[in-house]
Amino acid sequence: MSGTPLKELRQAYGFDDVAIVPGDVTINPEMANTDFILGDHLFTIPIMSSAMDAVASPGFSTLMHRAGGLGVVNLEGIYTRYDDPSAVLEDIVSAPQEEATVFLQKVYAEPVKENLVSERISEIKKDGAVCAVSVTPQNAKHLSTIAVEAGADILVVQSTVTTARHMSRSYRGLVLSELKKAVKIPVLVGNCVTYSVAMELMETGIDGVLVGVGPGAACTTREVVGVGVPQVTATLECAAAREEYFKRSGRYVSVITDGGIRTGGDLCKAFACGADSVMLGTPFAQSEEAPGRGFNWGMANAHAELPRGTRIKVGSKGPLQQILFGPTSATDGTQNLVGALRVAMGMCGAFTVKDMQKAQMMIAPAIKTEGKIFQMGRNSA
Amino acid sequence: MSGTPLKELRQAYGFDDVAIVPGDVTINPEMANTDFILGDHLFTIPIMSSAMDAVASPGFSTLMHRAGGLGVVNLEGIYTRYDDPSAVLEDIVSAPQEEATVFLQKVYAEPVKENLVSERISEIKKDGAVCAVSVTPQNAKHLSTIAVEAGADILVVQSTVTTARHMSRSYRGLVLSELKKAVKIPVLVGNCVTYSVAMELMETGIDGVLVGVGPGAACTTREVVGVGVPQVTATLECAAAREEYFKRSGRYVSVITDGGIRTGGDLCKAFACGADSVMLGTPFAQSEEAPGRGFNWGMANAHAELPRGTRIKVGSKGPLQQILFGPTSATDGTQNLVGALRVAMGMCGAFTVKDMQKAQMMIAPAIKTEGKIFQMGRNSA
Amino acid sequence: MSGTPLKELRQAYGFDDVAIVPGDVTINPEMANTDFILGDHLFTIPIMSSAMDAVASPGFSTLMHRAGGLGVVNLEGIYTRYDDPSAVLEDIVSAPQEEATVFLQKVYAEPVKENLVSERISEIKKDGAVCAVSVTPQNAKHLSTIAVEAGADILVVQSTVTTARHMSRSYRGLVLSELKKAVKIPVLVGNCVTYSVAMELMETGIDGVLVGVGPGAACTTREVVGVGVPQVTATLECAAAREEYFKRSGRYVSVITDGGIRTGGDLCKAFACGADSVMLGTPFAQSEEAPGRGFNWGMANAHAELPRGTRIKVGSKGPLQQILFGPTSATDGTQNLVGALRVAMGMCGAFTVKDMQKAQMMIAPAIKTEGKIFQMGRNSA
Amino acid sequence: MSGTPLKELRQAYGFDDVAIVPGDVTINPEMANTDFILGDHLFTIPIMSSAMDAVASPGFSTLMHRAGGLGVVNLEGIYTRYDDPSAVLEDIVSAPQEEATVFLQKVYAEPVKENLVSERISEIKKDGAVCAVSVTPQNAKHLSTIAVEAGADILVVQSTVTTARHMSRSYRGLVLSELKKAVKIPVLVGNCVTYSVAMELMETGIDGVLVGVGPGAACTTREVVGVGVPQVTATLECAAAREEYFKRSGRYVSVITDGGIRTGGDLCKAFACGADSVMLGTPFAQSEEAPGRGFNWGMANAHAELPRGTRIKVGSKGPLQQILFGPTSATDGTQNLVGALRVAMGMCGAFTVKDMQKAQMMIAPAIKTEGKIFQMGRNSA
Repeated sequence: MSGTPLKELRQAYGFDDVAIVPGDVTINPEMANTDFILGDHLFTIPIMSSAMDAVASPGFSTLMHRAGGLGVVNLEGIYTRYDDPSAVLEDIVSAPQEEATVFLQKVYAEPVKENLVSERISEIKKDGAVCAVSVTPQNAKHLSTIAVEAGADILVVQSTVTTARHMSRSYRGLVLSELKKAVKIPVLVGNCVTYSVAMELMETGIDGVLVGVGPGAACTTREVVGVGVPQVTATLECAAAREEYFKRSGRYVSVITDGGIRTGGDLCKAFACGADSVMLGTPFAQSEEAPGRGFNWGMANAHAELPRGTRIKVGSKGPLQQILFGPTSATDGTQNLVGALRVAMGMCGAFTVKDMQKAQMMIAPAIKTEGKIFQMGRNSA
Repeated sequence: MSGTPLKELRQAYGFDDVAIVPGDVTINPEMANTDFILGDHLFTIPIMSSAMDAVASPGFSTLMHRAGGLGVVNLEGIYTRYDDPSAVLEDIVSAPQEEATVFLQKVYAEPVKENLVSERISEIKKDGAVCAVSVTPQNAKHLSTIAVEAGADILVVQSTVTTARHMSRSYRGLVLSELKKAVKIPVLVGNCVTYSVAMELMETGIDGVLVGVGPGAACTTREVVGVGVPQVTATLECAAAREEYFKRSGRYVSVITDGGIRTGGDLCKAFACGADSVMLGTPFAQSEEAPGRGFNWGMANAHAELPRGTRIKVGSKGPLQQILFGPTSATDGTQNLVGALRVAMGMCGAFTVKDMQKAQMMIAPAIKTEGKIFQMGRNSA
Repeated sequence: MSGTPLKELRQAYGFDDVAIVPGDVTINPEMANTDFILGDHLFTIPIMSSAMDAVASPGFSTLMHRAGGLGVVNLEGIYTRYDDPSAVLEDIVSAPQEEATVFLQKVYAEPVKENLVSERISEIKKDGAVCAVSVTPQNAKHLSTIAVEAGADILVVQSTVTTARHMSRSYRGLVLSELKKAVKIPVLVGNCVTYSVAMELMETGIDGVLVGVGPGAACTTREVVGVGVPQVTATLECAAAREEYFKRSGRYVSVITDGGIRTGGDLCKAFACGADSVMLGTPFAQSEEAPGRGFNWGMANAHAELPRGTRIKVGSKGPLQQILFGPTSATDGTQNLVGALRVAMGMCGAFTVKDMQKAQMMIAPAIKTEGKIFQMGRNSA
Repeated sequence: MSGTPLKELRQAYGFDDVAIVPGDVTINPEMANTDFILGDHLFTIPIMSSAMDAVASPGFSTLMHRAGGLGVVNLEGIYTRYDDPSAVLEDIVSAPQEEATVFLQKVYAEPVKENLVSERISEIKKDGAVCAVSVTPQNAKHLSTIAVEAGADILVVQSTVTTARHMSRSYRGLVLSELKKAVKIPVLVGNCVTYSVAMELMETGIDGVLVGVGPGAACTTREVVGVGVPQVTATLECAAAREEYFKRSGRYVSVITDGGIRTGGDLCKAFACGADSVMLGTPFAQSEEAPGRGFNWGMANAHAELPRGTRIKVGSKGPLQQILFGPTSATDGTQNLVGALRVAMGMCGAFTVKDMQKAQMMIAPAIKTEGKIFQMGRNSA
């Protein structure tokens, strides 16, 4: 009908839109190996904690290390802005909901202190944990130098949207290939959501990409600026780029699905989409040990002019150990996440995460609300 | 856009997503024959009761037999773990909701007693009913020997996901072809949801496959481990395997849709998808005679480390006879299920269940909530 | 993946799923002609009232006639079962909701009286109205003879699902071509929803088909027996059959969309789908003159063994004249239905109903609930 | 199955159905240029205020001018019907909700006064603002003469649906090419939603088309007359027509998405769909300076016989300056709309609005309600 064709719109999918299909072969969950390797580090569970101040502290990194995973601390968060982050955290969670964003804007207006950057890294290293720290692209060059000197093991360069080719008037764009050469430790970069950006990032020599912009189909970035790609599609795209890049270069770059994972089901689907590892925010903010004390918030909330997100109450659901490994009596998928992954791997006949990436999926929207109580169906052990 | 193509996602459908299209010819409901044959047994209604403890007891099997259908008793449930299941059932339904899962985990920690296995089978046989019993694959070899000796007529081997090729470190995988030869009675195996697994199971020589993993798009297995296929798609796949296997081998293996059926409409759709028989849980848990006394729960709830499901209140809606055959004044599809099947067969011109499998269906999502009261339309008798 | 392909499922659409696209040319609403012709009768509005007892009485037929439309009275309803239908109607609307279905089952157990059939027809004719009466296929032969003798002008043969080839053990199937020859008045038959059935019905020589089984995606027939096709798809199919039949035979058979129309928007869409006329239930049950006094119910509710529908409260929204022609201050689409049709015809540049059938439509799901208050947009006069 | 094929239904999309995909290159938001040019006028923000009486007054036009955008005043609204519009506005917002439509019908029954038309234009010009005024097609010829004489800078000809070929019995159809020649100022015409109508309008020589009929998938026009096209699809169509027309003629005609934009996200998506500018109603009705005092309503509400819309409470959210430019602590996308556009342009690497029109989009339905609090994900600054 039109001489000029309409712009093409591809369908995208989120976790709630899909389901994993059991495999032709099944294995016992005990036979599933969940190892994840990054540089010289082997993690027995393919799970990271998000570099959000409500989730990650130096102490939490130690807990993640003991559990076999990886904690990431934000070098531009409360821990490097304040000598006594504990008091600030207490104030944040005590602020009335309607003033929470204003209060966060004020808290994050305080500048980052270089001495605290080194200090926090030392705290983590002292406990023997693998130390991963995150910085924004703007401050990556400067802060990464300090961090490496202080002994950081893994560097995460992260902003809402990161590409290999960012242009700015106010500062010289970060050249990732140079950064990678300079730091000599594994570098993870994100967030990205498309095949082409993931590919360009991989080509800079970095070690992993973080996947997720506006994760969860209803996140605030979608409301405020209209930008976002649901996590199933985003992970599928970046995983396809990883396979293609590996084919071309022989180098394997990790894909880490970051954000939007609330339950064991979501987590299992991320791997079925092709993730090598996942980064969790809210599920860990719900641990008793989380610095957020039952609340969660993102850095973008504190944006002085256009906050994108809000402080939310997530509650405390149990110790980190139980959230990761159970046993549990919760039936909503929020506990025993590693157990859930093993069960799903068993149902799909997956011996390794790499096998799990090959599991079939179908588009099968989850029914919300009511349907629930009448659709329990048969669940034999 | 990507050198490596994205993983393909097929669309899957559940009962609420589809509707049956009336046929080119109609017949009077009285002319519809609903017989279902399994081995030497002819059932006048193609309906089984689920092997859930809240649904099936030795007494319920007798009621199902009298109604023309088949009751299945779980040989690893409360009836074989406890001398006095009645007291245990009373305790389960009396537990406060927030403690229900913990309590179920405790109840099902009690071991199965071999003497009770024989005893329960005798109870069923004493009343002259066809005796069907279910076991998990792990215990199939051992318990089936006892069951056959005690006089069981039909064996059901059932777990959340069952394949012809399961691997385990702790026990030697069950070889279904050997089991089938050993027991000499009809064997039903499940649950499965795909063409390929159904085909492999049929090739082992068994007599029927149970269809349904995480039935109902919102079941807990989906939340906890992300695995599940909606029942319309699952039944279509397994029915296609049955037709193909019959073409190749000349042997007809039954397809039994198990789980997710709440109303007469769902039941009719299962047959239009290709089911030979259906297995019902909640609709029978709602009968006055059900052991669950207005509650229902699955075996997987009681999983010690990763429960997948919860005890739900389903209420008592009437005697089994009325649920199956009416007459009724209920208009929500929960009663007179066989009458509903006959009416649907009439509208589709189906003389037999085999004819009903050929009925056309369309994708026509059910509208929830409000729409209802304004969309009654014309319904002449 | 499967040797035997899966059954194909076509997508079906209801009124809420689609929207009409404005035309390339627009006309003033006053220029739109809404005439509908059936046999020798010309109706100035293409609208019938449904043969439901809560909607249609002999008196209502007169009102419909004066408005330029057509009222249909059910010859197997309360008016022909009871000498004093008014008292019975009063009892029905006074019954408590939980007993409504039981009460309706009792009311409709009373047999039809032949003398009342003639009497009701005389009442309608006495007022000078065109007299349309409806009968079920089972009783069509017998009752139509009485009706024609009493002076009925139009015969409607109607059941939930009607085909040209119905088989029954208990009575000899109705042969529509014979009926048509016998009665010598226009015959409308339904309900049907597919191209093939509409085509076969048209080939019997009848004058119109009623379209709609389980209209509205959520009607009770869907819940109880799983059968139903949403009205947009059903009307598109039957309209395509009409065009094809006209091409082959030169005879034009009317397509009447029956059921599921609640608003002016739905009504306009029915015509854009290809309807020549529409039959309304609930919108007329909401008129002050409706016998149902603010309630509505279908014949199938009263089914003794498997009721499909329930008595619903629809309220009284105004006199029939206002519902059809306005003026109104209601903004929800329930009043001034003919005005709405004229405005839509204007926006589509449609001078006649036949032009309106060619209007473009898009799939554009209506958003329910909240969205509403923020999505009013601009509406200039 | 059918000899005559069914009418084809294309899928249409609204703002809630899509999301913008970040680009391969990103730029700093400060580098984004948001200029919009119409005739000789350059606007630094591509945003107009809707010609609804609750949004636009002569004073509001001045505010829009100072902000860098364009206010449009309705020459057939309250300001030209009443000497003292303030009193009338007070009465409108004080009317009880159930009487609001009746009251609006009465208010808009008062005739337009020619002297007030000139007076209002003078008010706007006196303050040095660019003066844009809107008229309906019926009155376009007459009122535009007065308006141009009084000094109007831009003419908007607007009705719910406007085509280049409207037919009427009561008045000679407006010939847009003649009007354009007569007025000698930029002329915007609407509303339209399809490629073909946009193309025909452009061919008349006018300077811009307003896009949107029943914007927002749930607007009242959809309920009342069934007509409407969601804004994403409508904007894509009209933008494709603009590109094609430009290719053919070398003349660039602006596409202005009008209606259905509630948040920064919606606004950004409109540009990604191809809009050159947007027209906002509710977001501006929510400004403290809006004449509607926290309420909003459309002209079509006041239609004497078939009102399509209702007075809604939208609340007061802050001064216009903050709604457009922030800073804000609101996180729901209703404030700092220009900041949001700059951020989105940054994420898409768009230096200009023309670049932003090339941003990729995906179909990614927003999840309503609950999902929200658990799907915040990571938002780094």
